[in-house]
Amino acid sequence: MEIPGKYLEAYRKAMGKFINLTDEQWDLMSPCLRLEKLKKKATWIEAGEVCKTVGYIISGSVRLYHMKDGEEITSYFCMEDEWVSSYTSFLKQRPSLNYIEALEDTMILTFTYQQLQQWQAMPQLSHVVDRFCRLIAEYLICCYEDRVASFILQSPEERYMQLLENGRNILQRIPQHYIANYLGITPVSLSRIRKRILQTV
Amino acid sequence: MEIPGKYLEAYRKAMGKFINLTDEQWDLMSPCLRLEKLKKKATWIEAGEVCKTVGYIISGSVRLYHMKDGEEITSYFCMEDEWVSSYTSFLKQRPSLNYIEALEDTMILTFTYQQLQQWQAMPQLSHVVDRFCRLIAEYLICCYEDRVASFILQSPEERYMQLLENGRNILQRIPQHYIANYLGITPVSLSRIRKRILQTV
Repeated sequence: MEIPGKYLEAYRKAMGKFINLTDEQWDLMSPCLRLEKLKKKATWIEAGEVCKTVGYIISGSVRLYHMKDGEEITSYFCMEDEWVSSYTSFLKQRPSLNYIEALEDTMILTFTYQQLQQWQAMPQLSHVVDRFCRLIAEYLICCYEDRVASFILQSPEERYMQLLENGRNILQRIPQHYIANYLGITPVSLSRIRKRILQTV
Repeated sequence: MEIPGKYLEAYRKAMGKFINLTDEQWDLMSPCLRLEKLKKKATWIEAGEVCKTVGYIISGSVRLYHMKDGEEITSYFCMEDEWVSSYTSFLKQRPSLNYIEALEDTMILTFTYQQLQQWQAMPQLSHVVDRFCRLIAEYLICCYEDRVASFILQSPEERYMQLLENGRNILQRIPQHYIANYLGITPVSLSRIRKRILQTV
Protein backbone atom coordinates (compact mmCIF):
# COMPACT_ATOMS: atom_id res chain seq x y z
CA MET A 1 0.00 0.00 0.00
CA GLU A 2 1.38 3.41 -0.99
CA ILE A 3 1.98 5.49 2.15
CA PRO A 4 0.73 9.09 1.91
CA GLY A 5 3.56 11.62 2.15
CA LYS A 6 2.07 13.39 5.16
CA TYR A 7 2.26 10.17 7.20
CA LEU A 8 5.89 9.70 6.28
CA GLU A 9 6.58 13.32 7.22
CA ALA A 10 4.88 12.81 10.59
CA TYR A 11 6.98 9.70 11.14
CA ARG A 12 10.23 11.42 10.24
CA LYS A 13 9.36 14.32 12.54
CA ALA A 14 8.63 11.85 15.36
CA MET A 15 12.02 10.17 14.82
CA GLY A 16 13.53 13.66 14.75
CA LYS A 17 12.61 14.11 18.40
CA PHE A 18 15.19 11.41 19.13
CA ILE A 19 17.73 11.64 16.30
CA ASN A 20 18.56 13.67 13.21
CA LEU A 21 18.50 11.53 10.09
CA THR A 22 20.31 12.62 6.95
CA ASP A 23 18.34 12.41 3.71
CA GLU A 24 20.48 9.43 2.70
CA GLN A 25 19.59 7.60 5.92
CA TRP A 26 15.91 8.43 5.57
CA ASP A 27 15.91 7.19 1.98
CA LEU A 28 17.29 3.86 3.16
CA MET A 29 14.74 3.46 5.94
CA SER A 30 11.49 4.92 4.71
CA PRO A 31 10.78 2.44 1.85
CA CYS A 32 10.73 -0.35 4.46
CA LEU A 33 7.89 1.12 6.50
CA ARG A 34 4.43 -0.42 6.27
CA LEU A 35 1.06 1.18 6.93
CA GLU A 36 -1.36 -0.94 8.98
CA LYS A 37 -5.01 -0.01 9.32
CA LEU A 38 -6.91 -1.38 12.28
CA LYS A 39 -10.64 -1.24 12.74
CA LYS A 40 -11.93 -0.26 16.19
CA LYS A 41 -11.63 -3.25 18.57
CA ALA A 42 -9.29 -5.14 16.20
CA THR A 43 -6.44 -6.97 17.92
CA TRP A 44 -3.00 -5.84 16.76
CA ILE A 45 -0.88 -8.10 19.02
CA GLU A 46 -2.06 -11.41 20.52
CA ALA A 47 -0.72 -12.73 23.82
CA GLY A 48 1.19 -15.93 23.12
CA GLU A 49 2.41 -14.74 19.72
CA VAL A 50 5.78 -13.17 19.02
CA CYS A 51 5.51 -9.44 18.38
CA LYS A 52 7.32 -8.80 15.12
CA THR A 53 6.90 -5.04 14.74
CA VAL A 54 7.30 -1.66 16.38
CA GLY A 55 4.71 0.90 15.36
CA TYR A 56 4.24 4.64 15.31
CA ILE A 57 0.58 5.66 15.68
CA ILE A 58 -0.49 8.02 12.92
CA SER A 59 -4.07 8.32 14.17
CA GLY A 60 -6.34 6.58 16.68
CA SER A 61 -5.43 4.85 19.93
CA VAL A 62 -4.66 1.41 21.32
CA ARG A 63 -4.90 -0.35 24.65
CA LEU A 64 -2.38 -2.82 26.11
CA TYR A 65 -3.92 -5.43 28.39
CA HIS A 66 -3.26 -8.74 30.11
CA MET A 67 -5.79 -11.55 30.60
CA LYS A 68 -6.07 -13.04 34.09
CA ASP A 69 -8.71 -15.67 34.86
CA GLY A 70 -10.84 -14.48 31.95
CA GLU A 71 -10.58 -10.84 33.03
CA GLU A 72 -8.85 -8.07 31.11
CA ILE A 73 -6.38 -5.91 33.01
CA THR A 74 -5.44 -2.73 31.18
CA SER A 75 -1.82 -1.73 31.56
CA TYR A 76 -1.38 1.13 29.10
CA PHE A 77 -2.91 3.38 26.47
CA CYS A 78 -1.06 4.76 23.45
CA MET A 79 -2.37 7.45 21.11
CA GLU A 80 -1.38 9.21 17.91
CA ASP A 81 2.20 10.46 17.76
CA GLU A 82 3.37 7.72 20.13
CA TRP A 83 5.41 4.55 19.59
CA VAL A 84 3.90 1.20 20.47
CA SER A 85 4.99 -2.42 20.67
CA SER A 86 4.89 -5.40 22.96
CA TYR A 87 8.46 -4.47 23.66
CA THR A 88 9.93 -7.43 25.53
CA SER A 89 8.35 -9.80 23.03
CA PHE A 90 9.81 -7.75 20.18
CA LEU A 91 13.29 -7.44 21.71
CA LYS A 92 13.61 -11.08 22.73
CA GLN A 93 11.42 -12.48 19.95
CA ARG A 94 9.48 -14.49 22.50
CA PRO A 95 5.70 -14.79 22.97
CA SER A 96 3.98 -11.63 24.13
CA LEU A 97 2.41 -11.63 27.60
CA ASN A 98 -0.12 -8.96 26.67
CA TYR A 99 -2.62 -8.04 23.98
CA ILE A 100 -2.75 -4.78 22.07
CA GLU A 101 -6.08 -3.74 20.55
CA ALA A 102 -7.37 -0.67 18.74
CA LEU A 103 -9.73 1.51 20.78
CA GLU A 104 -10.69 3.52 17.70
CA ASP A 105 -10.03 3.11 13.98
CA THR A 106 -6.26 3.35 14.05
CA MET A 107 -3.40 3.73 11.56
CA ILE A 108 0.09 2.58 12.48
CA LEU A 109 3.36 2.90 10.55
CA THR A 110 5.51 -0.11 11.38
CA PHE A 111 8.91 -1.65 10.85
CA THR A 112 9.80 -5.28 11.57
CA TYR A 113 12.40 -6.96 13.76
CA GLN A 114 14.07 -8.39 10.68
CA GLN A 115 14.22 -4.93 9.13
CA LEU A 116 15.83 -3.54 12.26
CA GLN A 117 18.55 -6.20 12.05
CA GLN A 118 19.19 -5.30 8.42
CA TRP A 119 19.42 -1.57 9.18
CA GLN A 120 21.73 -2.39 12.05
CA ALA A 121 24.08 -4.24 9.68
CA MET A 122 24.33 -1.27 7.28
CA PRO A 123 27.32 1.00 8.01
CA GLN A 124 25.30 4.11 7.09
CA LEU A 125 22.59 3.25 9.62
CA SER A 126 24.25 1.21 12.35
CA HIS A 127 25.04 4.07 14.73
CA VAL A 128 21.84 5.99 14.16
CA VAL A 129 19.76 2.84 14.77
CA ASP A 130 21.58 2.18 18.05
CA ARG A 131 21.02 5.76 19.13
CA PHE A 132 17.35 5.72 18.15
CA CYS A 133 16.71 2.41 19.92
CA ARG A 134 18.61 3.65 22.98
CA LEU A 135 16.51 6.80 23.25
CA ILE A 136 13.23 4.96 22.65
CA ALA A 137 14.17 2.41 25.30
CA GLU A 138 15.21 5.11 27.78
CA TYR A 139 11.97 6.95 27.12
CA LEU A 140 10.02 3.77 27.84
CA ILE A 141 11.96 3.11 31.05
CA CYS A 142 10.91 6.53 32.32
CA CYS A 143 7.28 5.74 31.43
CA TYR A 144 7.43 2.39 33.25
CA GLU A 145 9.14 3.80 36.33
CA ASP A 146 6.64 6.64 36.52
CA ARG A 147 3.75 4.21 36.20
CA VAL A 148 5.07 1.87 38.89
CA ALA A 149 5.79 4.84 41.18
CA SER A 150 2.32 6.28 40.58
CA PHE A 151 0.74 2.96 41.61
CA ILE A 152 2.81 2.95 44.79
CA LEU A 153 2.74 6.64 45.69
CA GLN A 154 -0.56 7.99 44.37
CA SER A 155 -4.19 7.35 45.21
CA PRO A 156 -6.57 6.39 42.34
CA GLU A 157 -7.89 9.97 42.55
CA GLU A 158 -4.41 11.39 42.06
CA ARG A 159 -3.79 9.02 39.16
CA TYR A 160 -7.06 10.15 37.60
CA MET A 161 -6.05 13.81 38.01
CA GLN A 162 -2.80 13.01 36.25
CA LEU A 163 -4.69 11.54 33.28
CA LEU A 164 -6.85 14.66 33.29
CA GLU A 165 -3.81 16.92 33.23
CA ASN A 166 -1.70 15.20 30.62
CA GLY A 167 -3.88 16.74 27.96
CA ARG A 168 -4.09 13.89 25.47
CA ASN A 169 -7.89 13.75 25.59
CA ILE A 170 -7.65 10.24 26.96
CA LEU A 171 -10.66 10.75 29.18
CA GLN A 172 -12.88 11.96 26.36
CA ARG A 173 -11.84 9.28 23.90
CA ILE A 174 -11.48 6.13 25.97
CA PRO A 175 -14.51 4.30 27.46
CA GLN A 176 -14.83 4.83 31.21
CA HIS A 177 -14.63 1.14 32.09
CA TYR A 178 -11.18 0.93 30.50
CA ILE A 179 -10.09 4.01 32.43
CA ALA A 180 -11.34 2.44 35.68
CA ASN A 181 -9.58 -0.81 34.78
CA TYR A 182 -6.35 1.09 34.09
CA LEU A 183 -6.59 2.94 37.41
CA GLY A 184 -7.16 -0.36 39.22
CA ILE A 185 -10.63 0.57 40.50
CA THR A 186 -14.24 -0.31 39.72
CA PRO A 187 -16.33 1.86 37.36
CA VAL A 188 -18.46 2.80 40.40
CA SER A 189 -15.43 4.12 42.28
CA LEU A 190 -14.43 6.04 39.18
CA SER A 191 -17.87 7.69 39.03
CA ARG A 192 -17.48 8.72 42.66
CA ILE A 193 -14.04 10.21 42.00
CA ARG A 194 -15.37 12.14 39.01
CA LYS A 195 -18.27 13.54 41.07
CA ARG A 196 -15.93 14.66 43.84
CA ILE A 197 -13.65 16.38 41.35
CA LEU A 198 -16.58 18.12 39.61
CA GLN A 199 -17.78 19.45 42.96
CA THR A 200 -14.40 20.97 43.77
CA VAL A 201 -13.80 22.59 40.36
CA MET B 1 41.01 5.13 45.67
CA GLU B 2 43.02 2.68 43.53
CA ILE B 3 40.64 0.09 42.05
CA PRO B 4 41.89 -3.51 42.30
CA GLY B 5 42.49 -5.09 38.88
CA LYS B 6 40.09 -7.96 39.50
CA TYR B 7 37.21 -5.51 39.97
CA LEU B 8 38.04 -3.76 36.71
CA GLU B 9 38.22 -7.14 34.98
CA ALA B 10 34.80 -8.09 36.37
CA TYR B 11 33.42 -4.77 35.14
CA ARG B 12 34.88 -5.17 31.66
CA LYS B 13 33.50 -8.69 31.46
CA ALA B 14 30.06 -7.42 32.50
CA MET B 15 30.18 -4.75 29.78
CA GLY B 16 31.32 -7.50 27.41
CA LYS B 17 27.93 -9.17 27.77
CA PHE B 18 26.51 -6.16 25.94
CA ILE B 19 29.34 -4.84 23.75
CA ASN B 20 32.90 -5.63 22.75
CA LEU B 21 35.26 -2.83 23.73
CA THR B 22 38.63 -2.45 22.04
CA ASP B 23 41.61 -1.95 24.34
CA GLU B 24 41.77 1.69 23.23
CA GLN B 25 38.13 2.23 24.20
CA TRP B 26 38.61 0.50 27.54
CA ASP B 27 41.69 2.61 28.27
CA LEU B 28 39.62 5.75 27.72
CA MET B 29 36.78 4.62 29.96
CA SER B 30 38.28 2.67 32.82
CA PRO B 31 40.27 5.51 34.47
CA CYS B 32 36.96 7.36 34.98
CA LEU B 33 35.36 4.64 37.09
CA ARG B 34 35.05 5.11 40.85
CA LEU B 35 34.79 2.48 43.56
CA GLU B 36 32.16 3.16 46.22
CA LYS B 37 32.01 1.15 49.43
CA LEU B 38 28.72 1.05 51.29
CA LYS B 39 28.23 -0.29 54.77
CA LYS B 40 25.19 -2.52 55.35
CA LYS B 41 22.05 -0.32 55.62
CA ALA B 42 23.82 2.72 54.16
CA THR B 43 21.71 4.78 51.75
CA TRP B 44 23.23 5.06 48.27
CA ILE B 45 20.48 7.14 46.60
CA GLU B 46 18.03 9.40 48.47
CA ALA B 47 14.52 10.09 47.16
CA GLY B 48 14.32 13.79 46.28
CA GLU B 49 17.94 13.96 45.19
CA VAL B 50 19.16 13.70 41.61
CA CYS B 51 20.86 10.37 40.92
CA LYS B 52 24.23 11.22 39.38
CA THR B 53 25.67 7.74 38.80
CA VAL B 54 25.10 4.31 37.33
CA GLY B 55 26.76 1.50 39.23
CA TYR B 56 27.89 -2.06 38.68
CA ILE B 57 27.73 -4.14 41.85
CA ILE B 58 31.04 -5.88 42.55
CA SER B 59 29.83 -7.53 45.74
CA GLY B 60 26.88 -7.29 48.10
CA SER B 61 23.29 -6.32 47.36
CA VAL B 62 20.97 -3.32 47.40
CA ARG B 63 17.27 -2.69 47.74
CA LEU B 64 15.21 -0.10 45.84
CA TYR B 65 12.23 1.22 47.76
CA HIS B 66 9.64 3.97 47.84
CA MET B 67 8.27 5.67 50.95
CA LYS B 68 4.49 6.01 51.23
CA ASP B 69 2.90 7.44 54.40
CA GLY B 70 5.97 6.52 56.44
CA GLU B 71 6.02 2.96 55.10
CA GLU B 72 8.71 1.46 52.90
CA ILE B 73 7.60 -0.33 49.75
CA THR B 74 10.33 -2.47 48.19
CA SER B 75 10.33 -2.42 44.41
CA TYR B 76 13.55 -4.24 43.48
CA PHE B 77 16.67 -6.04 44.63
CA CYS B 78 20.02 -5.93 42.82
CA MET B 79 22.99 -8.13 43.60
CA GLU B 80 26.60 -8.59 42.53
CA ASP B 81 27.21 -8.65 38.78
CA GLU B 82 24.16 -6.45 38.14
CA TRP B 83 23.80 -2.80 37.10
CA VAL B 84 21.94 -0.41 39.35
CA SER B 85 20.73 3.16 39.27
CA SER B 86 17.67 5.25 39.93
CA TYR B 87 17.38 5.24 36.19
CA THR B 88 14.76 7.87 35.37
CA SER B 89 16.39 10.25 37.79
CA PHE B 90 19.77 9.58 36.16
CA LEU B 91 18.49 9.90 32.57
CA LYS B 92 16.45 13.04 33.15
CA GLN B 93 18.64 14.45 35.92
CA ARG B 94 15.57 15.04 38.04
CA PRO B 95 14.92 14.10 41.69
CA SER B 96 14.70 10.38 42.36
CA LEU B 97 11.34 8.97 43.47
CA ASN B 98 12.94 6.04 45.27
CA TYR B 99 15.70 5.20 47.71
CA ILE B 100 18.48 2.70 47.17
CA GLU B 101 20.15 1.20 50.24
CA ALA B 102 22.75 -1.49 50.84
CA LEU B 103 21.37 -4.73 52.27
CA GLU B 104 24.89 -6.02 52.98
CA ASP B 105 28.34 -4.44 52.88
CA THR B 106 28.44 -3.57 49.20
CA MET B 107 31.01 -2.42 46.63
CA ILE B 108 29.88 -0.61 43.50
CA LEU B 109 31.90 0.58 40.50
CA THR B 110 30.30 3.74 39.17
CA PHE B 111 30.43 6.28 36.36
CA THR B 112 28.71 9.67 36.43
CA TYR B 113 26.19 11.36 34.16
CA GLN B 114 28.75 14.01 33.29
CA GLN B 115 31.24 11.30 32.39
CA LEU B 116 28.72 9.62 30.11
CA GLN B 117 28.19 12.91 28.26
CA GLN B 118 31.95 13.26 27.81
CA TRP B 119 32.30 9.71 26.49
CA GLN B 120 29.39 10.34 24.18
CA ALA B 121 31.19 13.35 22.70
CA MET B 122 34.36 11.37 21.92
CA PRO B 123 34.39 9.95 18.37
CA GLN B 124 36.14 6.77 19.55
CA LEU B 125 33.39 6.08 22.11
CA SER B 126 30.24 7.70 20.77
CA HIS B 127 28.82 4.65 18.99
CA VAL B 128 29.85 2.11 21.59
CA VAL B 129 28.29 4.23 24.36
CA ASP B 130 25.01 4.47 22.45
CA ARG B 131 25.02 0.72 21.89
CA PHE B 132 25.83 -0.05 25.51
CA CYS B 133 23.16 2.33 26.83
CA ARG B 134 20.66 0.90 24.34
CA LEU B 135 21.26 -2.66 25.47
CA ILE B 136 21.22 -1.77 29.18
CA ALA B 137 17.95 0.12 28.67
CA GLU B 138 16.40 -2.72 26.67
CA TYR B 139 17.49 -5.19 29.34
CA LEU B 140 15.82 -3.03 31.99
CA ILE B 141 12.61 -2.73 29.97
CA CYS B 142 12.36 -6.51 29.89
CA CYS B 143 12.90 -6.62 33.69
CA TYR B 144 10.18 -3.99 34.26
CA GLU B 145 7.69 -5.61 31.91
CA ASP B 146 8.26 -9.01 33.50
CA ARG B 147 7.79 -7.54 36.96
CA VAL B 148 4.58 -5.74 36.04
CA ALA B 149 3.26 -8.87 34.29
CA SER B 150 4.17 -11.04 37.28
CA PHE B 151 2.17 -8.76 39.58
CA ILE B 152 -0.80 -8.98 37.26
CA LEU B 153 -0.60 -12.63 36.22
CA GLN B 154 0.99 -14.49 39.15
CA SER B 155 -0.10 -15.19 42.70
CA PRO B 156 2.30 -14.21 45.55
CA GLU B 157 3.11 -17.94 45.84
CA GLU B 158 4.08 -18.11 42.16
CA ARG B 159 6.18 -14.96 42.53
CA TYR B 160 7.91 -16.53 45.54
CA MET B 161 8.62 -19.70 43.53
CA GLN B 162 10.16 -17.54 40.83
CA LEU B 163 12.51 -15.92 43.36
CA LEU B 164 13.36 -19.42 44.58
CA GLU B 165 14.16 -20.59 41.07
CA ASN B 166 16.20 -17.69 39.80
CA GLY B 167 19.15 -18.99 41.76
CA ARG B 168 20.68 -15.77 42.99
CA ASN B 169 20.43 -16.78 46.67
CA ILE B 170 18.10 -13.86 47.24
CA LEU B 171 16.04 -15.81 49.72
CA GLN B 172 19.04 -16.79 51.84
CA ARG B 173 20.62 -13.36 51.85
CA ILE B 174 17.74 -10.94 52.14
CA PRO B 175 15.69 -10.54 55.34
CA GLN B 176 12.25 -12.15 55.12
CA HIS B 177 10.33 -8.95 55.84
CA TYR B 178 11.88 -7.31 52.76
CA ILE B 179 10.97 -10.36 50.67
CA ALA B 180 7.37 -10.16 51.93
CA ASN B 181 7.33 -6.43 51.26
CA TYR B 182 8.63 -7.03 47.71
CA LEU B 183 5.98 -9.70 47.08
CA GLY B 184 3.28 -7.33 48.32
CA ILE B 185 2.23 -9.56 51.23
CA THR B 186 2.61 -9.61 55.02
CA PRO B 187 5.45 -11.55 56.68
CA VAL B 188 2.76 -13.87 58.13
CA SER B 189 1.44 -14.71 54.66
CA LEU B 190 5.00 -15.33 53.53
CA SER B 191 5.52 -17.82 56.38
CA ARG B 192 2.37 -19.64 55.32
CA ILE B 193 3.53 -19.82 51.71
CA ARG B 194 6.93 -21.16 52.79
CA LYS B 195 5.29 -23.85 54.93
CA ARG B 196 3.02 -24.94 52.09
CA ILE B 197 5.96 -25.17 49.72
CA LEU B 198 8.07 -27.15 52.23
CA GLN B 199 5.22 -29.65 52.64
CA THR B 200 4.98 -30.26 48.92
CA VAL B 201 8.73 -30.64 48.28
